[in-house]
Amino acid sequence: MKGLFITFEGGEAVGKSTLIRALDAHFRSSLVQTLCTREPGGSAFGPLVRKILLEAEDLANEAELFLFLADRAEHVRGVIKPALAQGITVLCDRFADSTLVYQGAARSIDLDFVQRACEIAVQGLVPDITFLLDLDPKIGLKRASNRNLDRIEQETLQFHETVRSAYLQLAKEHPSRFIVLDASKTAEEVKNQAIEHLYARHR
Amino acid sequence: MKGLFITFEGGEAVGKSTLIRALDAHFRSSLVQTLCTREPGGSAFGPLVRKILLEAEDLANEAELFLFLADRAEHVRGVIKPALAQGITVLCDRFADSTLVYQGAARSIDLDFVQRACEIAVQGLVPDITFLLDLDPKIGLKRASNRNLDRIEQETLQFHETVRSAYLQLAKEHPSRFIVLDASKTAEEVKNQAIEHLYARHR
Repeated sequence: MKGLFITFEGGEAVGKSTLIRALDAHFRSSLVQTLCTREPGGSAFGPLVRKILLEAEDLANEAELFLFLADRAEHVRGVIKPALAQGITVLCDRFADSTLVYQGAARSIDLDFVQRACEIAVQGLVPDITFLLDLDPKIGLKRASNRNLDRIEQETLQFHETVRSAYLQLAKEHPSRFIVLDASKTAEEVKNQAIEHLYARHR
Repeated sequence: MKGLFITFEGGEAVGKSTLIRALDAHFRSSLVQTLCTREPGGSAFGPLVRKILLEAEDLANEAELFLFLADRAEHVRGVIKPALAQGITVLCDRFADSTLVYQGAARSIDLDFVQRACEIAVQGLVPDITFLLDLDPKIGLKRASNRNLDRIEQETLQFHETVRSAYLQLAKEHPSRFIVLDASKTAEEVKNQAIEHLYARHR
């Protein structure tokens, strides 16, 4: 049987990694085999791509977009599809929705093009479930201020508000795939919401 | 005054590098400032991209396409446009036409998509002149057999014939940009053809 492909989306410091760790532990305790992975950086050359994205002081928006897509295409071919084919459940921190939201909506590269480019990159693979951790960016950025902010976290509040509403719009357009979680709750409550929804859909 | 942007296209071992060196010497002797560059690998992160393209044993076609495009977008923004703005003539070994021909026509990724993706990557920059070195691939491959063949040179003869006719088709569609040279001639004759055409168009 093919594994489930579950992706995790949302703005900065909404608690994606915490939820992934919690669900991973939950699955393993039920003897479900899992693979936790992430984008960017999941492909065989992911470390090189992360290096470029982090070290480039000044990068064309278009170059950033194509690097994410290259990493994704190889991540899908070399990592995600083979795991799913072996019946492993894949938990992936960010996937194509991130590109639509960050490069399409927020950086305003032609959205139709970004959409088509994502379709090409994923080679037909669509998540079974996408958890969207929804949070007021004012709260997210306050949480994130406890750590060193990366290039994207340093964007304006307006940018992060565009990101939030673009995500909510995507969730509205794909109601059977998206599960929107209230990320202002505690980690325990968010995990319980997630598991409840998961079993309601995939019993 | 803006510099001229000249690109060099063609199949394997048609003599692009030899012609670039000859034209570069010709320009310099006329006190025209030049920059010789190439794709893939011209951007600030070009060496990393070349490393991925050469070392990956097995790479999704889509990943290959997006890597070329990322490198090009940054090459245009960080290298080619600034040089042209300073009045430098840029001689570039392969550019967007290579992607249309190799990834679009020969690898059969959706050609409309590849075309749009190239438009996004070049950010409005179109070569002033494109020299197409046209050669029967049987002759080119025979010349190339004297060196170690790379991943693309090792493709079938059919692949290289598709490449040749896709290039000739592009030249037909953009007659004011393309100059087709007979690459079966000696290096000296090819250089002379090129210079003659150049001055006929840009006197």
